[in-house]
Amino acid sequence: MTLEHRYRATIEYDGTDFLGYQIQAEGRTVQGEIERCLKRVTQTSVRIDGAGRTDAGVHAIGQVIAFNVTWRHTLKDLHRAFNATLPHDIIISDLRITDPAFHPRFKALSRTYQYHVINQRWPSVLQRRYTYHVQKELDVTAMNEASRLLLGSHNFASFGKPPQGHNTVRNVIEAGWSATSDTQLTFSITANAFLYRMVRTIVGTLIQVGLGRLAVSDVKDILDAQDLTRSAPPAPAHGLCLVSVAYP
Amino acid sequence: MTLEHRYRATIEYDGTDFLGYQIQAEGRTVQGEIERCLKRVTQTSVRIDGAGRTDAGVHAIGQVIAFNVTWRHTLKDLHRAFNATLPHDIIISDLRITDPAFHPRFKALSRTYQYHVINQRWPSVLQRRYTYHVQKELDVTAMNEASRLLLGSHNFASFGKPPQGHNTVRNVIEAGWSATSDTQLTFSITANAFLYRMVRTIVGTLIQVGLGRLAVSDVKDILDAQDLTRSAPPAPAHGLCLVSVAYP
Repeated sequence: MTLEHRYRATIEYDGTDFLGYQIQAEGRTVQGEIERCLKRVTQTSVRIDGAGRTDAGVHAIGQVIAFNVTWRHTLKDLHRAFNATLPHDIIISDLRITDPAFHPRFKALSRTYQYHVINQRWPSVLQRRYTYHVQKELDVTAMNEASRLLLGSHNFASFGKPPQGHNTVRNVIEAGWSATSDTQLTFSITANAFLYRMVRTIVGTLIQVGLGRLAVSDVKDILDAQDLTRSAPPAPAHGLCLVSVAYP
Repeated sequence: MTLEHRYRATIEYDGTDFLGYQIQAEGRTVQGEIERCLKRVTQTSVRIDGAGRTDAGVHAIGQVIAFNVTWRHTLKDLHRAFNATLPHDIIISDLRITDPAFHPRFKALSRTYQYHVINQRWPSVLQRRYTYHVQKELDVTAMNEASRLLLGSHNFASFGKPPQGHNTVRNVIEAGWSATSDTQLTFSITANAFLYRMVRTIVGTLIQVGLGRLAVSDVKDILDAQDLTRSAPPAPAHGLCLVSVAYP
C-alpha cells in the first residue's frame, strides 16, 4: 500500500517580492518557495504544477497547484505544516486530495483575473501595492463599451503572445469594469485561457479609451489587426490579481 | 504684506513602518516625516498640529493636520512639492488655506475610525497589513448588540486612559459592525473624541463577545465598572484606521 496521493491546493500570494510564479535559475519565485517548503515538510523533492504563470509583481488569491507526495499523517496536518513553513507572502487557503490525473493547467476550463485601478488626483498609500493609480478621470462607460468588443472567440494576437505554439485564439467569456467606490475601479475578465501579458495589455488599451486617447472603435480595429504593436503598452503588474481557476 | 497662511491638510498614511503619529526623540514618526519634508519644501522649520495621535502601526486615510508657512507660489505648487518630497507611505490627499484660528484637534467635532477583521481559517496575505485575522467564527449579531450598549455619553474608563487630564467621559455617536464580504468585517465607530487605545480595547472586547467568551451583558458590566482591568486586551494596531475627522 502506497501513501502517495495527488494534492490540489488553492494558493494566495502577494506578488510584490517575487520574480513571478515560475521557477527560475536565480531569484525568488512562487513555485521555488513552495517547492522548497514542500521539501522541508515532506523530506522529498517535489515538483509542483500550476494553473497559470503569473508575471513578476502579479498577485493571486486563487492560483491552483497540484503535486504528488507521500504523507503519513492527516490532510489537516499537511496543510498546517505547509502553511507554517511558507513565507509571510504565500498561503495555502485550501488543500485537498485529488484525482491522480488532475493537472491545474490542462484541466482548467477558464481563468478569472481582476485588475484594480484607483482613479483620483493623488495615489493612495494604503492601496499602492495592489492598485494602479490613474490621475486623469476615466470614462468608465466608454471602457465598458470597448470591453464588450472583446467578448467571444477572437484572435487576440494584438494583445499578447502565446506561452507556447502559435495559437492566439482565445475565448473571452466575461469582461467588464465596475466601480467599487467613488474612485476605485475593478476590471474583471474570464477566458478559457490567456496569452502572455494579455490582461495587462487589454487593460492598458482600455485605459487609453477611458482617457479619450483611443475611441471605442479603435479597439475593434486593434483587435482585427492581429498585430501586437497596435495595442497600448501593458498596464503595470501590481494592479493585477489571478482570482480563480474553474474546473469541470 | 505677509505671505504667511495657515494650511489645513488631509493626510493618508500606512502606519506599518511608523512608531506612531506623534514626533519622538528617536524613530520614524508621521509628524516627524511631515515636518522634515515641510522644512525641505519651505526652507523653514514648521511645527504641525494633528487631529489625533495614532499609535504605532495604526493607519489613516483622513488624518487632519494644520501648519503656518510662508509660500510665494500657488497652493497647487505647494501641494505638488509637498507630495513629491514625502516618503511613499504618506500622502497629502487634500490641501487648502484655512482660518488662522483653525486647530485640527481642538476644533474637531468628531472622529471616525474603522477596524478591519478577516474571519476565516487562514490569514489573507494580501490583506495582512491592514486587517486582523480571527480564525474562529464570530457571532456578528452579538457583537452588534454589544456595540449598541456603547452608544451615547458614558464614562469609558474601562476602555482607555485619557491622553491628558482625568476626564474619561466620551460621547459615542455611531458604532457597529458590517460585513464587506463573506469573511471580512468592518467595525466603524464615531465619537466626539477617544481615550488612548479606546477603539482597539473596544474591538478586543467585542471580539470576545463574537467568540462567545463574553456575553453581551458582560459588556454592560465592564462599561459600568469604569475599570480598565475589566476589558479585554486591545486588538492589534494594524487593523485600525483613522478614517475622518469632522469640523463645523
